[in-house]
Amino acid sequence: MSFKNFSEMIAAVKSQPQKRIAVAAADEHEILQAVRNAQDEKLTQAILVGNKANIEKICAEHHISLNGFEIINEPDHIEAARKCCTMVKQKEAHVIVKGLIDTAKYMKAILDKQTGLATGNLLSHVAVFETDCYHKLLFVTDAAINIKPNLDQKVGIIQNAVSVARMLGVEMPKVACCCGVEKVNAAAMPETIDAAILSKMNGRGQITGCMIDGPLGLDNAVNTQSAQIKKIDSPVAGDADIIMAPDLASGNFLYKTLLFLAKSRAAAIVAGAAAPVVLTSRADNHETKYLSIALGLASSQNG
Amino acid sequence: MSFKNFSEMIAAVKSQPQKRIAVAAADEHEILQAVRNAQDEKLTQAILVGNKANIEKICAEHHISLNGFEIINEPDHIEAARKCCTMVKQKEAHVIVKGLIDTAKYMKAILDKQTGLATGNLLSHVAVFETDCYHKLLFVTDAAINIKPNLDQKVGIIQNAVSVARMLGVEMPKVACCCGVEKVNAAAMPETIDAAILSKMNGRGQITGCMIDGPLGLDNAVNTQSAQIKKIDSPVAGDADIIMAPDLASGNFLYKTLLFLAKSRAAAIVAGAAAPVVLTSRADNHETKYLSIALGLASSQNG
Repeated sequence: MSFKNFSEMIAAVKSQPQKRIAVAAADEHEILQAVRNAQDEKLTQAILVGNKANIEKICAEHHISLNGFEIINEPDHIEAARKCCTMVKQKEAHVIVKGLIDTAKYMKAILDKQTGLATGNLLSHVAVFETDCYHKLLFVTDAAINIKPNLDQKVGIIQNAVSVARMLGVEMPKVACCCGVEKVNAAAMPETIDAAILSKMNGRGQITGCMIDGPLGLDNAVNTQSAQIKKIDSPVAGDADIIMAPDLASGNFLYKTLLFLAKSRAAAIVAGAAAPVVLTSRADNHETKYLSIALGLASSQNG
Repeated sequence: MSFKNFSEMIAAVKSQPQKRIAVAAADEHEILQAVRNAQDEKLTQAILVGNKANIEKICAEHHISLNGFEIINEPDHIEAARKCCTMVKQKEAHVIVKGLIDTAKYMKAILDKQTGLATGNLLSHVAVFETDCYHKLLFVTDAAINIKPNLDQKVGIIQNAVSVARMLGVEMPKVACCCGVEKVNAAAMPETIDAAILSKMNGRGQITGCMIDGPLGLDNAVNTQSAQIKKIDSPVAGDADIIMAPDLASGNFLYKTLLFLAKSRAAAIVAGAAAPVVLTSRADNHETKYLSIALGLASSQNG
């Protein structure tokens, strides 16, 4: 059963055996608040790795209870991220969450072949939106990591998003490879070629566990009427679970329009590592941070 | 005084001396309905060029009154478009509207150097959105015509959008050259270089009548808090009138997200020709078609 909204996703996380999150460089107010909320809601048990004195000071200042948190004192950011990775590898934690550490340093620790969480798979960004303009959760990828992905990278991006969607109960995710137009325009829009190829690779069993169609316009992907008017015969049209953007810029525009110009709720993780990676940005609101932790827990494969 | 919403724009059109629209190949139900509404609202006086028998039949079938329409019988689509262009050139009409004619043929007639409306300026698509998530009308360009514009074309795209915004009362439009990130990333995201150059060209007086800043993330452009968190010091941030997308795909994603995944109202025209060109798509809803005609009238320079 797939989740129609975030409330159902959160209820599912609560009903499972509790998983743990490891927070790298946890001495940051906003993330401590989101982690506190997640633990109060009984979604998780948090292990905070960071400067213990700072963590205690920030929590005191902002009236955040430390009750039930496990705190590991490690003031060095890189070392904190490394310790979190080790905990995930040893199944002591199931999701890794970014705190005060720089994104570049955090990702470097995760990608480290010896001590990190690299699996050989591409890492990609998977966002999930709940909006009252769509009948189910909508996955968007990749709005933040892969800038101008080539065909192979697009395969990896799809596989990561499909794997997250399946963890959220979407048995056979419908993937729309969206472009500016719904027809192949080989000369001027090479992304439409990629979309056509990815569809065919899906038909030939080279990408499995999902149903891929493209090129599709974003309107055809999410709106049945729009697909009908354009006479598009597609099992994905009007009912897409996953929108794959042709590049970061367009994915990012979709992501930010939904978040800043529409009344949507969002969650996002980085997929493709040995465990879900929560990488919220400073500009994300409180709710997005909390929902991203919940999404990480919901999409974690470790029991 | 700039218009905060479409109601104000429509009221302004009504208060001006009435302008006329010329509809090319008008024998199409949806456009006849939109034109009827515009005429009933006293926004315009319509001249329908097309197959007269078909126009009368369609109007009878759909109970659309022909009252007050001027009908010119011209069954040939290309010839109908040409006649509309001639009327615009002779100031008998002020806005040209696409009917049943193929978009390619319609645009070819408009771009014809002898009989069309070409001015030597770039043609570009300008969309305008009203959403309760933003404090004023938001202009988006180019979501439909220029696929991967170079720097010179981006100058033209900005100038066209600025000129439409000024006709709608925005005295000094704030233009955000949006990218996936708000920092210059010369190697991986050449669009951020263009954005930086366009800002500087504006500072040097090479692009006038507006205030340009970029690169900006879409969030920084429309959300003050997001700009503050990222420590972006910009007169455009959080208050953009015009979002210039780096390419058609990202502009199209922004356009379609606002239209299909958010509760926005939209209007759009093609700017850069001798008169505003209304080019609605089959997938546009009735309201968008009506508002696009109103936008064409509001942005027409002919008295």
